[in-house]
Amino acid sequence: MVTRTFQQIILALQNFWGEQGCVLIQPFDGEVGAGTFHPATFLRAIGPEPWKAAYAQPSRRPQDGRYGDNPNRLQHYYQFQTVMKPSPDNFQELYLQSLEVLGIDATANDIRFIEDNWESPTLGAWGLGWEVWLNGMEVSQFTYFQEVGGLPAKPVMGEITYGLERLAMFIQQCKSVFDLQWTEDTTYADVYLQNEKEHSAYNFERANTALLAQLFDSIEGEAQTLLDSSPLPLPAYEMTIKCSHLFNLLDARGVIAVSERTRYIARVRKLARQCARAYFESREKLGFPLQNKQ
Amino acid sequence: MVTRTFQQIILALQNFWGEQGCVLIQPFDGEVGAGTFHPATFLRAIGPEPWKAAYAQPSRRPQDGRYGDNPNRLQHYYQFQTVMKPSPDNFQELYLQSLEVLGIDATANDIRFIEDNWESPTLGAWGLGWEVWLNGMEVSQFTYFQEVGGLPAKPVMGEITYGLERLAMFIQQCKSVFDLQWTEDTTYADVYLQNEKEHSAYNFERANTALLAQLFDSIEGEAQTLLDSSPLPLPAYEMTIKCSHLFNLLDARGVIAVSERTRYIARVRKLARQCARAYFESREKLGFPLQNKQ
Repeated sequence: MVTRTFQQIILALQNFWGEQGCVLIQPFDGEVGAGTFHPATFLRAIGPEPWKAAYAQPSRRPQDGRYGDNPNRLQHYYQFQTVMKPSPDNFQELYLQSLEVLGIDATANDIRFIEDNWESPTLGAWGLGWEVWLNGMEVSQFTYFQEVGGLPAKPVMGEITYGLERLAMFIQQCKSVFDLQWTEDTTYADVYLQNEKEHSAYNFERANTALLAQLFDSIEGEAQTLLDSSPLPLPAYEMTIKCSHLFNLLDARGVIAVSERTRYIARVRKLARQCARAYFESREKLGFPLQNKQ
Repeated sequence: MVTRTFQQIILALQNFWGEQGCVLIQPFDGEVGAGTFHPATFLRAIGPEPWKAAYAQPSRRPQDGRYGDNPNRLQHYYQFQTVMKPSPDNFQELYLQSLEVLGIDATANDIRFIEDNWESPTLGAWGLGWEVWLNGMEVSQFTYFQEVGGLPAKPVMGEITYGLERLAMFIQQCKSVFDLQWTEDTTYADVYLQNEKEHSAYNFERANTALLAQLFDSIEGEAQTLLDSSPLPLPAYEMTIKCSHLFNLLDARGVIAVSERTRYIARVRKLARQCARAYFESREKLGFPLQNKQ
């Protein structure tokens, strides 16, 4: 019997951050490369309104697929995401407390914060950041957003991203992600191994690249239309997320030349910036209601 | 201070069903009309392997949008989904226990099970079913799958779907979904009101119908290719889900004639059936590993 199953780890983090006042929201129902893409992070980081949220986001990085053969690499995995705006002074302390809730004693283990600023060229976002290393393995990332969708982050949102599988492998002393106990009698392999194999084949061999490129163009156009007059930043931002994932799929298929790569990223960023601005303006028009609520 | 916040209700259900041995999986990261579409329900209902899972699925019904003006209707809402295969004899009893965990006393309230068989023409699925009415309001749905993707359900999977917002409105004695306390100081409106307004405008006024129809055709074609040789049922099923949502968007825009409607549904069902068969065969080839595990 394991100390903490994979799902108990997630529940413990949800409970902990819920108690800190975070809105426990469900993950975004679209394919994203990281929890940062969720509107509950990207859009809520914009403007003066306070916001706290946490969720476990299924994340897809098509290029990281290894057909289920690599014990550490997955094209579909979970990120546990916590955001707080404004970023509290004791954010790092809260993080260490959350590790203790998981049974990880900060005094008995080697926990290091290593400076590593973060940048997302597609989202037009960057922040001051630190990786957290636990006995030599990166298990989390701290970011203090400085700019989001090209807008200055005022006040600054703090973000913690836990690599849930890695953290669970540490807690369960497990050498392969597929051996993780998800429940007492179900492993990670039981839940996601076939998915890893099939999506690796899709990402690297079978995805129709002409179609992906065409979908990118069409959905980019639709996003632009939604932004051009009477902007709808939320639906437009969902299209932007779709474009970002389509780009990742094209990239995994190896059909994007270096110069094209830069162009694709710039196209997604252009949309993300417009979404950010339109969202800011929509909240401004409402008088930033969450700010006045406090 | 409310008895149970919206997020505490979800946590309580996760804890309860986790203790019953369910795999607490994250909701599917794609737009779905109901929790049933999640591969953890639809695909796992197929074949002889045992399976138990629970999750809160963001669900989208474009046609149900009301621009945030209706206290009971949303185009984006949460379903809490529990599935157990084989369906346990005390499934109904477990359900009543889960209500007690939420503070709903079955002896002090009027709880009725009203026969209402379920059918999903798009998924080629149907089941024997009951609606659960709590003091005159439908709050849950029980289904015992008989057929899934055209295949007989052997053994039968039992499914409970909780309408989370409705249940929370009952628990919090709330007249509008937007007044629900998500946390102690955040309401449902704070989290999703702007989203309801903008997506209603998108669904009813702005979505580009020519593009939606073209995306349906293209993605249907891609799904068919993935099924035709060396089938990849999981990626193909994700495309099927996308087609289903595109159809729902087209339907909300009112551009589908009655005869076309039937044809669209048949096209999605044709894909769903092929995915079901291909998934069954893939599991058979592996020797139905979860069955042998027991």
